[in-house]
Amino acid sequence: MQNYTAPTKDAQFVLHEVLEISKSDIPGYADLDRDFTDAIFDAAGKVSSEILAPLNAVGDTEGCHLENGVVRTPKGFKQAFEAVKEGGWNGLDLPEEYGGQGLPYLVGTVVGEFFVSGNMAFNMYQGLTHGAIGAILTHGTDEQKTAYVPKMLSLEWTGTMNLTEAHCGTDLGLMRTKAEPQKDGSYKITGEKIFISSGEHDLAENIIHLVLAKAPGGGEGTKGISLFLVPKFMLKADGSLGARNAVACGKLEEKMGIHGNSTCVMNFDGATGYLLGDLHKGMRAMFTMMNEARLGVGLQGYSVAEIAYQNALAYAKDRLQGRAVTGAENPDGPADPLIVHPDIRRNLMEQKSFVEGARAFTYWAAELIDRSHRLNDEDAEGLVSLMIPVLKGFQTDKGFEAAVNAQQVYGGHGYIEEQGMSQFARDARIAMIYEGANGVQALDLVGRKIGQDGGKYAMAFFGLVKDFIKENEGDAALKAQFLDPLKAASKDLQAASMFFVEKGMKNPNAALAGAYDFMHLFGHVCLGLMWARMAKAAQAALAAGAEDAAFYEAKLATGRFYMARQLPATALHLTRILSGDDPVMALGAEAF
Amino acid sequence: MQNYTAPTKDAQFVLHEVLEISKSDIPGYADLDRDFTDAIFDAAGKVSSEILAPLNAVGDTEGCHLENGVVRTPKGFKQAFEAVKEGGWNGLDLPEEYGGQGLPYLVGTVVGEFFVSGNMAFNMYQGLTHGAIGAILTHGTDEQKTAYVPKMLSLEWTGTMNLTEAHCGTDLGLMRTKAEPQKDGSYKITGEKIFISSGEHDLAENIIHLVLAKAPGGGEGTKGISLFLVPKFMLKADGSLGARNAVACGKLEEKMGIHGNSTCVMNFDGATGYLLGDLHKGMRAMFTMMNEARLGVGLQGYSVAEIAYQNALAYAKDRLQGRAVTGAENPDGPADPLIVHPDIRRNLMEQKSFVEGARAFTYWAAELIDRSHRLNDEDAEGLVSLMIPVLKGFQTDKGFEAAVNAQQVYGGHGYIEEQGMSQFARDARIAMIYEGANGVQALDLVGRKIGQDGGKYAMAFFGLVKDFIKENEGDAALKAQFLDPLKAASKDLQAASMFFVEKGMKNPNAALAGAYDFMHLFGHVCLGLMWARMAKAAQAALAAGAEDAAFYEAKLATGRFYMARQLPATALHLTRILSGDDPVMALGAEAF
Repeated sequence: MQNYTAPTKDAQFVLHEVLEISKSDIPGYADLDRDFTDAIFDAAGKVSSEILAPLNAVGDTEGCHLENGVVRTPKGFKQAFEAVKEGGWNGLDLPEEYGGQGLPYLVGTVVGEFFVSGNMAFNMYQGLTHGAIGAILTHGTDEQKTAYVPKMLSLEWTGTMNLTEAHCGTDLGLMRTKAEPQKDGSYKITGEKIFISSGEHDLAENIIHLVLAKAPGGGEGTKGISLFLVPKFMLKADGSLGARNAVACGKLEEKMGIHGNSTCVMNFDGATGYLLGDLHKGMRAMFTMMNEARLGVGLQGYSVAEIAYQNALAYAKDRLQGRAVTGAENPDGPADPLIVHPDIRRNLMEQKSFVEGARAFTYWAAELIDRSHRLNDEDAEGLVSLMIPVLKGFQTDKGFEAAVNAQQVYGGHGYIEEQGMSQFARDARIAMIYEGANGVQALDLVGRKIGQDGGKYAMAFFGLVKDFIKENEGDAALKAQFLDPLKAASKDLQAASMFFVEKGMKNPNAALAGAYDFMHLFGHVCLGLMWARMAKAAQAALAAGAEDAAFYEAKLATGRFYMARQLPATALHLTRILSGDDPVMALGAEAF
Repeated sequence: MQNYTAPTKDAQFVLHEVLEISKSDIPGYADLDRDFTDAIFDAAGKVSSEILAPLNAVGDTEGCHLENGVVRTPKGFKQAFEAVKEGGWNGLDLPEEYGGQGLPYLVGTVVGEFFVSGNMAFNMYQGLTHGAIGAILTHGTDEQKTAYVPKMLSLEWTGTMNLTEAHCGTDLGLMRTKAEPQKDGSYKITGEKIFISSGEHDLAENIIHLVLAKAPGGGEGTKGISLFLVPKFMLKADGSLGARNAVACGKLEEKMGIHGNSTCVMNFDGATGYLLGDLHKGMRAMFTMMNEARLGVGLQGYSVAEIAYQNALAYAKDRLQGRAVTGAENPDGPADPLIVHPDIRRNLMEQKSFVEGARAFTYWAAELIDRSHRLNDEDAEGLVSLMIPVLKGFQTDKGFEAAVNAQQVYGGHGYIEEQGMSQFARDARIAMIYEGANGVQALDLVGRKIGQDGGKYAMAFFGLVKDFIKENEGDAALKAQFLDPLKAASKDLQAASMFFVEKGMKNPNAALAGAYDFMHLFGHVCLGLMWARMAKAAQAALAAGAEDAAFYEAKLATGRFYMARQLPATALHLTRILSGDDPVMALGAEAF
């Protein structure tokens, strides 16, 4: 019942008309002309709609099964994985020297969106491998890169990240998994990790686990943590697979959603591991991967919302129920389609304006990551690091909300699993939790990011919004409908930041009590900015006599909805922030 | 893992200190002294925490099973149902002449909350029976009452409501189920109904289906609809069970939640039915039950949130993770409990302030229903009818949100089914959909209720808020912390109403585009009013030197949180409403 068509036109609009990528000075971007990206996105969209999306409900219904230490993925996953492998999709934005195509991260991000929309649980097998490759490329020795990256890039092997233990999630300083140094320079890793996505499965010949563990001598808390590479099968001298390592899946978790992905308890029983990066610098090694990992989760937020929206929209056009209050619009039928009703329209517009705004925000962030990597641009790195917790936290909260809204369009049918709408809500729910629960994102934003380097990047963000408004306020329509609301929202954000600066030093709780609201306030301003930029691009296209005027008119109407009805939430978030810590903290823990 | 303790003290506070029920002029209320209600609520709370709550996860995991036309409920449900039956809980607020105890509806509402918190899916078997009894008592003949009510009241038999068909949910005019009159005065009912809660199961000897169907001669649309009583087993002349009627469960639906309740496709294959109430007045017969049915669902919203909150709170006190930013609070432990973190505290306060506010609002509405029934008070009936769509829509939206928030406190563990937090979110989700999806509640509120009898009841509501403020504004603390915010919120509500009055006549879409926001705006004002009333009562208790000062101080702190951080949402809802229909309707259906 779940259908999906990749929104290639919307993606292209952001890339070529809003970000204007082929005019960019970022190395590699000049090659990204419209025909080239069209070809890639059409092919990726086809993989998603024809291969991945049809397996989405299968994965949900069937789930993964652990039998004698072997995890069986849902029927059809293996063939689909072969197709993704053969298409070379995993290496799209990875270095050519290891077999990749060396395209910008931005291109991989667009393809990632399409794949996640089609089948979020399935795409995690590939997505985590991609992340693990990044860690090896950044921290590994040349030997490690040569031994592991090509096989992982080709998806012959997959990767995992092992951080969490039963008693420690956010607070990794409590970690118990131990690494004992061996004479040959390797380590024996012993401990139990939980919530390991793709920890064990039948899609690849080998699985390369990246594992955080405590090696002797590093000190207390997170200081003693190092990052280790632990292969499921050891490599022989020629690189082929040798003996099984002492790591195994002890249990599969039964989850609310993403049933198609195997979430494993992993037991390391003196498993052989190799140090990845510097000893006792494991936390730092993890952190260097964090922007991309969190962008990937923020992307899941709106990508699942996109497929949920597409299905809700189709239902709203198809399902006949009631009559438009302004007179029958389908007089020959027994009733009008749901979409005539204003409240259904409101619901759809909330989904649509969020998804399109979030897509633009995410692509912009991916462009900044390319800029930071390919031009060593520290300002871009600082700006995107500031926005990443917002992108992750805001977009996953709103993405879940949108999926729940999409489910609501179906009425009672939305609650029945057969219809597929419940899965979108259940799948989207995890993105608010993993890769740092959204409360932790808010803490990262308020506790670390806004004050970083003396608030330099926050000031840069405000300056960027201000400049955009100033440059464009000669356009009366843009000003009234987009720039003025953006200016008001940005002022709310600045007022909140100022409140934190003034209160936060003396009373950190005053800032932290408002952290979650600040994350949402910031998210709205980011989407407001992106909508203003999209509106400008749409107006330009219309002024230039673009062929598909309806497409650009729809962008403007959707943007107006966001500015008029969603963006004003900034004022509420500010009010909540300014109420300070007393309402939140007045009730003592013992009095609950 | 799911634990529950009935909040009897909170319930008693609302009943005896806020609503001051034993001073009420409503017949039957004078008997409700504190000792009497204490005894009832303690016993009900015990049933819920000791019998129902332990089966909640069992029901979710095991679900119901259809085998050869027989539905098997989860293990333990039958014994628990016997316990509820033996306790006489179903007859608590039903007439003594049929075996009930004749207590006010309000008392049944409190007990209902405890039972729903403990096990929502289980309680539906009883809850729907209670509703069906109400319909028979209101519309049945004396013979029908005598034949069916005593057995249903005692839960030897249960009841159902059969409205929805696959192609028609909200739009009942499209109904196809037919009723053909027979010579003996009965009807043959033929058709398929879907989403029938408790439609078939193994808990009772007989099931009494109330079925909407079209009998000849009534005209088009909803006009031809009548209400029929269709027993699963026919009754012999002596009232004992006779032959099986031609009604059967064709399928069980796989749902997102409430797995413990059997949601059935019911096939009526020329089943014998008896007219209940007047021919072709079936819609009206259903509507007379609607206030109580919708209050029951609005109650589910906060009752599931209550148990979710209790478990989140316990976890937040127990789970050690990170350190308080203001200095370690558990210095001898490896980390501080989650509850020290301001964002966790914010999350818990949102849940707590909602649940306690919603409880007070629901009990007040139940009191108004008693007033309307027991004193034939049309003003009370009008006022509660106005508030019911708010109570249903707002409380189920916020109840789901609270359950999702509770799940979030658990971090990754919240996503694992074993922990039980996912079930609360999945169960709570249905309440936003059934008994009229929340968009339909908003439509009912804006399209019918606020203008009813010339806006008489809306004016009465505003007057009531105004009077409360006026009567109490001499108290400076109450004024600043509770009355002033309430006044501002109430002004927002009035401004929105005025906008609808001015625009709605010429352009109904302008009102309907804001209907959902209006429902939420109204909900906040209702909870704001209840918090102001609770604050007044708490202050009075403190002034009188109440023994348990901490309890009343906690009420005040929780109320202050609601007023400072939740109630200001009214301004955002007003902004959205005043933006009118253009943002919502500008994009034509074809342009989506």
